[in-house]
Amino acid sequence: MAVHEFKVTAKDEKTFARAGLLTLPHGKVMTPCYMPVGTQASVKALSPEDVLACGSEILLANTYHLMLRPGADLVEKMGGLHRFMHWDKPILTDSGGFQVFSLADLRKITEQGVEFQSHLDGRKCELTPESATQIQHKIGADIIMAFDECIPYPSPEDYVEQSVDRTSRWAERCWQTHRQSGREKEQALYGIVQGANFPHLREKSAKALLAFDFPGYAIGGVSVGEPKASIYRVVEQTAPYLPAHKPRYLMGVGTPEDLWECVERGMDMFDCVMPTRIARNGTALTRKGRVILKNAQYAQDERPLDESCGCECCRHYSRAYLRHLFQAEELLVLRLVSLHNLRFMTEICETMRTAIELNRFLEAKREFMALYFDSSSGAKG
Amino acid sequence: MAVHEFKVTAKDEKTFARAGLLTLPHGKVMTPCYMPVGTQASVKALSPEDVLACGSEILLANTYHLMLRPGADLVEKMGGLHRFMHWDKPILTDSGGFQVFSLADLRKITEQGVEFQSHLDGRKCELTPESATQIQHKIGADIIMAFDECIPYPSPEDYVEQSVDRTSRWAERCWQTHRQSGREKEQALYGIVQGANFPHLREKSAKALLAFDFPGYAIGGVSVGEPKASIYRVVEQTAPYLPAHKPRYLMGVGTPEDLWECVERGMDMFDCVMPTRIARNGTALTRKGRVILKNAQYAQDERPLDESCGCECCRHYSRAYLRHLFQAEELLVLRLVSLHNLRFMTEICETMRTAIELNRFLEAKREFMALYFDSSSGAKG
Repeated sequence: MAVHEFKVTAKDEKTFARAGLLTLPHGKVMTPCYMPVGTQASVKALSPEDVLACGSEILLANTYHLMLRPGADLVEKMGGLHRFMHWDKPILTDSGGFQVFSLADLRKITEQGVEFQSHLDGRKCELTPESATQIQHKIGADIIMAFDECIPYPSPEDYVEQSVDRTSRWAERCWQTHRQSGREKEQALYGIVQGANFPHLREKSAKALLAFDFPGYAIGGVSVGEPKASIYRVVEQTAPYLPAHKPRYLMGVGTPEDLWECVERGMDMFDCVMPTRIARNGTALTRKGRVILKNAQYAQDERPLDESCGCECCRHYSRAYLRHLFQAEELLVLRLVSLHNLRFMTEICETMRTAIELNRFLEAKREFMALYFDSSSGAKG
Repeated sequence: MAVHEFKVTAKDEKTFARAGLLTLPHGKVMTPCYMPVGTQASVKALSPEDVLACGSEILLANTYHLMLRPGADLVEKMGGLHRFMHWDKPILTDSGGFQVFSLADLRKITEQGVEFQSHLDGRKCELTPESATQIQHKIGADIIMAFDECIPYPSPEDYVEQSVDRTSRWAERCWQTHRQSGREKEQALYGIVQGANFPHLREKSAKALLAFDFPGYAIGGVSVGEPKASIYRVVEQTAPYLPAHKPRYLMGVGTPEDLWECVERGMDMFDCVMPTRIARNGTALTRKGRVILKNAQYAQDERPLDESCGCECCRHYSRAYLRHLFQAEELLVLRLVSLHNLRFMTEICETMRTAIELNRFLEAKREFMALYFDSSSGAKG
């Protein structure tokens, strides 16, 4: 089996939305897809069987977290991440770039790489393009990511340009390391386009990466505090530079409406902790907007979270029961709402795929948005 | 179907151990049985499907907790506890007696009942034999318990006698309330023998309750801080007073060794929060003793918790992975270890049942104890 194959299977005529099929060493993934985040080798509150039941075909794990605990060597010794966490479908690992810049302390960036202190115990660590790639080799995901610098928002143009150039040089070193490892048959390395909200720097970044003919390309450095409109604009301006026959991954995005907006602009893959994080705060996503379980209005509500959802949570439990569990701090509710929210995001991807195949993406988007934002029953998304 | 039927199906010749079949409105329960505790309408960290997968056929819920939150009226309005929590097998509710005495503040005991303040919000509440029974009617469990006074250990003999007499008078009021409710077809009311560690008071209590011909009898007021030997002695001295053709339930007990010791002395039913509580502290029960997950010795241990266990946790996950999840505070580990520990307790019951049927209870007990207490690999039980 080819290590990595991507086919666009349908295109919407009025937008840049497309449906595709990604073939990876551990299985096939239909796109658009939403990858649940298993930061520390576990999608929070869910078992792999739960994640499968949500319809997910690929999940994401974080190199930064795993290298610090339990350590990449241990994961490798245990037979790689798939075996360690009992998930035999595709996995993508990020490069650690984003977390080094968002979580670690006392960073020092040089041409060589980044020195930082672990957010767990203050231990001094280093990530370079070479080590980030080698660590991802040990973890063994189907898709691994180039090590990039993820800058804060906003950043001045001259710094962004400097950083884009460094990220391009780092991408080349990742590519070299990966090529020389002989692991190209087992793992696919994607490049990450940076450039903040400067169109010419996004273009510059994309063009520099194209030289290495990566099997897939990501847009990084978004969802870092900027307004939503800025994310959509970056996608709109950057996607056209990315090869149409390769998967396009928008990192760290996003909400239900973000999926619609960014698939419309040509993106295929997404990940975000949002659905499971808000679940643990007692917030459920439904077709009619958000349900905040602590609200008294649900105390006697016999309906499931979402009447049109077929997940385990909606098949068996009332809002009244879920609210009770949340008020009583019962662990089960974290699992049930996480499961529902993840199913909700996955189902949006399925709806989008069908709409693309039927050439009615914009109509389907309009239908979704109308119900999601204008329903009186739920809080706003 | 009869509301409540109990048949002793096998007896061990050398001990008082027996196997039985209990038929209840929501299904059959093989005894000896270990009831997982779903205090607040949820067995902590587990779904009903998880509990079923452990082999549990009946679970316990706490009247005290449910009356305070979400309230018995709400549970009734939602169609009763079975429907509310999505568990259509048998349920037993305690009477609230034990919790009033262990959790509530500012108790005042009178002949009428107990006044107390909710441990949740300080709200003034009252439980009487009548109201405890009526609340259990609203909750709708298959087996409900008489309202008793659960005294501290140790207590002076004269107070214990006074309390035993009051508990007997309360039992009569529970029995009257239940009879007049017309719910005897749907719910079975069990009496609770008190008397601390005074054999003649246990005898007095048991004999007083026999007058009401309850369909089942419990031994209460044990596992309140006294030495284990005292629990076993109370069971040994009390069980003979309880009718042999009715189920005998030992409340709030216990550990693996407690099950063996007390089944040997003629008990049929057990409940305890221990297996799920220690699971949440990262302690697993195995045939070779306890496994404390945080211990460094498990960091690279590829074995499952218990190599002879077939539960979801042992089928798919290594000790190394479980330890990582525990160190990383990942919620999944709470579910997996709870599931394993509950399966472990249920499997002990299955082992005991088979041993009774084969008339080799003491041999099986000796085999279990030898492995459980003398293995070098695990901490002691």
